[in-house]
Amino acid sequence: MDTKQFKEAAQSALEEITQYYDTLAERPTLPSISPGYLKPLLPTSAPEKGEAWETIQADIDRVIMPGLTHWQSPKYMAFFPCNSSYPAMLGEMYSSAFNAAAFNWICSPAVTELETIVMDWVAKLLNLPECYLSDGEGGGIIQGTASEVIVTAVVAARERLIRRRLADMPEGEEKIDKAAELRGKLVAMGSEHAHSSTQKAAMIAGTRFRKVPAPKETGFSVTGQALRQTIEECKAKGLEPFYFTATLGSTATCAVDDLAGIAEVAREYPDVWIHVDAAYAGSALVCPEYQHLCPPMADFDSFNFNMHKWLLVNFDCSAFYIKKRKNLIDTYSLTPSYLRNEYAEKGLVTDYHNWQIPLGRRFRSLKVWFVLRSYGVEGLRAFIRNHIKLGEYFHGLVKSRSDLFTVVTGPHFALTTFSVNPRRLGGAAAANKPDPSHEAYLNDFTPSADAQYQEDANQITKEVYEKVNAQGEFFLTSTVVCGIYVIRVVSANIRAEDKYLKQVFDVLVQMTDEVLGAKA
Amino acid sequence: MDTKQFKEAAQSALEEITQYYDTLAERPTLPSISPGYLKPLLPTSAPEKGEAWETIQADIDRVIMPGLTHWQSPKYMAFFPCNSSYPAMLGEMYSSAFNAAAFNWICSPAVTELETIVMDWVAKLLNLPECYLSDGEGGGIIQGTASEVIVTAVVAARERLIRRRLADMPEGEEKIDKAAELRGKLVAMGSEHAHSSTQKAAMIAGTRFRKVPAPKETGFSVTGQALRQTIEECKAKGLEPFYFTATLGSTATCAVDDLAGIAEVAREYPDVWIHVDAAYAGSALVCPEYQHLCPPMADFDSFNFNMHKWLLVNFDCSAFYIKKRKNLIDTYSLTPSYLRNEYAEKGLVTDYHNWQIPLGRRFRSLKVWFVLRSYGVEGLRAFIRNHIKLGEYFHGLVKSRSDLFTVVTGPHFALTTFSVNPRRLGGAAAANKPDPSHEAYLNDFTPSADAQYQEDANQITKEVYEKVNAQGEFFLTSTVVCGIYVIRVVSANIRAEDKYLKQVFDVLVQMTDEVLGAKA
Repeated sequence: MDTKQFKEAAQSALEEITQYYDTLAERPTLPSISPGYLKPLLPTSAPEKGEAWETIQADIDRVIMPGLTHWQSPKYMAFFPCNSSYPAMLGEMYSSAFNAAAFNWICSPAVTELETIVMDWVAKLLNLPECYLSDGEGGGIIQGTASEVIVTAVVAARERLIRRRLADMPEGEEKIDKAAELRGKLVAMGSEHAHSSTQKAAMIAGTRFRKVPAPKETGFSVTGQALRQTIEECKAKGLEPFYFTATLGSTATCAVDDLAGIAEVAREYPDVWIHVDAAYAGSALVCPEYQHLCPPMADFDSFNFNMHKWLLVNFDCSAFYIKKRKNLIDTYSLTPSYLRNEYAEKGLVTDYHNWQIPLGRRFRSLKVWFVLRSYGVEGLRAFIRNHIKLGEYFHGLVKSRSDLFTVVTGPHFALTTFSVNPRRLGGAAAANKPDPSHEAYLNDFTPSADAQYQEDANQITKEVYEKVNAQGEFFLTSTVVCGIYVIRVVSANIRAEDKYLKQVFDVLVQMTDEVLGAKA
Repeated sequence: MDTKQFKEAAQSALEEITQYYDTLAERPTLPSISPGYLKPLLPTSAPEKGEAWETIQADIDRVIMPGLTHWQSPKYMAFFPCNSSYPAMLGEMYSSAFNAAAFNWICSPAVTELETIVMDWVAKLLNLPECYLSDGEGGGIIQGTASEVIVTAVVAARERLIRRRLADMPEGEEKIDKAAELRGKLVAMGSEHAHSSTQKAAMIAGTRFRKVPAPKETGFSVTGQALRQTIEECKAKGLEPFYFTATLGSTATCAVDDLAGIAEVAREYPDVWIHVDAAYAGSALVCPEYQHLCPPMADFDSFNFNMHKWLLVNFDCSAFYIKKRKNLIDTYSLTPSYLRNEYAEKGLVTDYHNWQIPLGRRFRSLKVWFVLRSYGVEGLRAFIRNHIKLGEYFHGLVKSRSDLFTVVTGPHFALTTFSVNPRRLGGAAAANKPDPSHEAYLNDFTPSADAQYQEDANQITKEVYEKVNAQGEFFLTSTVVCGIYVIRVVSANIRAEDKYLKQVFDVLVQMTDEVLGAKA
């Protein structure tokens, strides 16, 4: 493919892509194909001779489109959004043109330096404590995903503890044995509602894992006291707690752990590395009205949020901030001679591969730069506030049918979770005098509550949820929190509008009527 | 940015990118800026109001271009190539448009299914043993980098060993204690010339690491016997070797470990997971003349190569093959309720997040698919063979000046390494009767050899190397193998031509003349 052919091909691809974007709302969000759909549509091996672009491009519509889940559709309300934006797509175009495995400064200085600069811009935009800026001892790095970041933090936390404990031992076999013994005692911790990636990270790091309770009474949030208690329980067993993921916006319900209370614990136990996972909700910190959440982070060790979720930077782009970059470099730097260069030796430059697990790095800061500049601070705040408002709108809709639905959490950061009432409540009764078993369901999840009622509610909520997704028009997700099966609705992508929330709500009401009707 | 503005912006970006590609050879490969160049050129925070694309785009030329190292230039001959191609760039365009954190099948079935299919195409293209195809117990997955793959393999190997050893113990605290104790005894191994990522992976996994000797006498390759001896030495100390990276094309010299000999060891020690790292050289396996390297892999556990290095798929794209996918899933699957879906539960689909460390996944198979189809098998073979021929050409040039240079290794997979002779040898003497100390330098690195000669050679080679890079026209790398400082030249990117190799050779001769002249 020569330059001329590429320009024509790219032109044609741009037409197809923009046409796709402009017609997203007309497509069912979920594909209707079955597992294994693609194999019969493609050859069993690569072609011997090269094919023309027209032939290849035609297959996108023929075989790929039918198998896509349309995350950019306004009818996508599942998991969390994964926003695409045109400026970020331009960033990806340039990044792919300037293709390089830019693992250190000299490999492409602009890749490193732009990243440091835009990560500082983002830290200021979020009003993060100053310790996370690059001009002190901290700084930001772009990694792929929150799960990758958490592994990076857990391993660094593990090694920091070992360096501290064994600081006085001379290097050698005895120290290696001692370190191995110590690693076997370590415990990573996360909220019972933290994303599973903390538990997975503990497994990867070869450490133990403990869940910290976060019951409904505290709004599914970990309190400082709950964390302190878990730490003490571990210590009582001769184990060493060394890491905790504090959650700012849990996956299930967007709960926020008690960061101020946890900051006290951080001061009491300086060997416990506190990482804040704000994968989705962190983007809301661009709005001053959420920045009261930031000051406690000065007592923590690291923070991350995924700009690819709610801040218009295409996947992947997880912004990871570290208070003392030394804690990453002491763990991850292992520079052999063929990766050394005079600039790094002199300490003049940042070699980001020493802040992360993989060696090679993409030029991801370009897309961040383009998005920040295209939208401006005002544009990004307006973007987030629009979704917050849409979340309140949907929450209002659910509340308006308390005969059918019970709000369980939210709206938090545009996410509402709710369950379906197993018995239709009378209009007045629903608003004013709920059924006692319904009341118990909402407020009390002890065995003394009406367990049968709860089981019925879970069953019926699941049925309604599955019917909505089976229809395919909208895509929702569900989860179970403290024994309650809930449907999650979060509409926070670039094409979100109240009319789509009204549509999905009508579908939910219809499906609920059908399910309840069938039971009656 | 609306659709119309995006199309105009993208059009303008395409013009700039193609113009950049078409003028690469005219630019110095290395930038001439100093560390910290970018900060004074940019504001200290994101703009309040959004900016127009023209303003943003103008800054690419103003501030980014001066800080780029041009990996796509034909004058880039450092590290290994990181090839970009137009079809792969189109793949990235669509991937960024279909933006999704496609971590499981239902998140976007086409992402999973196309990946399985193209990874099978690639396995067949390389003639990998059938156990690596998806229709048996194995399969391929695209990960980001070889270093990420190696961490994935090391952790899976560690957990496999623990599962095997503790299979009879009931679940519970005692088993967790026992597993922790066992982890502390584990040893990962790699060639002394293996990429540092194996040692880093062992650190991440919290295990010990041992280098396996690979001296000059065996061409810097690990033999089966050397591996066996290292295993036995570990066992004699009460340690448990559990993992070995076999190298197919080492970073320093493109040495290939003795795969057939290592396969025997694999059969003797089934608890040692053997992973083949063919990050760069693996691409050559598309040519039948290299496929004799493949059969021993049937005795190994996993294999990977970076299609982003030498097979025209833009960074990042590391193809990772596993003989028994169960060994990944048993380690990495930790599926909580909110990530479950009926298809995965029924075992009908592949959920690739259970084969890897991060959760989210990009749609990387599109670019692989486009490259395989645009080039065809014939085109890819021609691409590799052209570089092999260029490598031989450069090797011939170096040999032709044996008065100045000594070839240390190669050409292996288009890579030649050589050192500069510290004393200019007479024409005839060079060809026929080398200086005895020179002879010793080539064949004998024991202390009995002329240590001073070697030290001089290292010093002068380093000086020549630094002068070439300081000029900035070409970018080379150097390394030290078994005490020998060598310059590496590998010209294997899409724009490589013999004329650029002749040019760099002339520069090397000129710089050597200057350095030797200054010493005389």
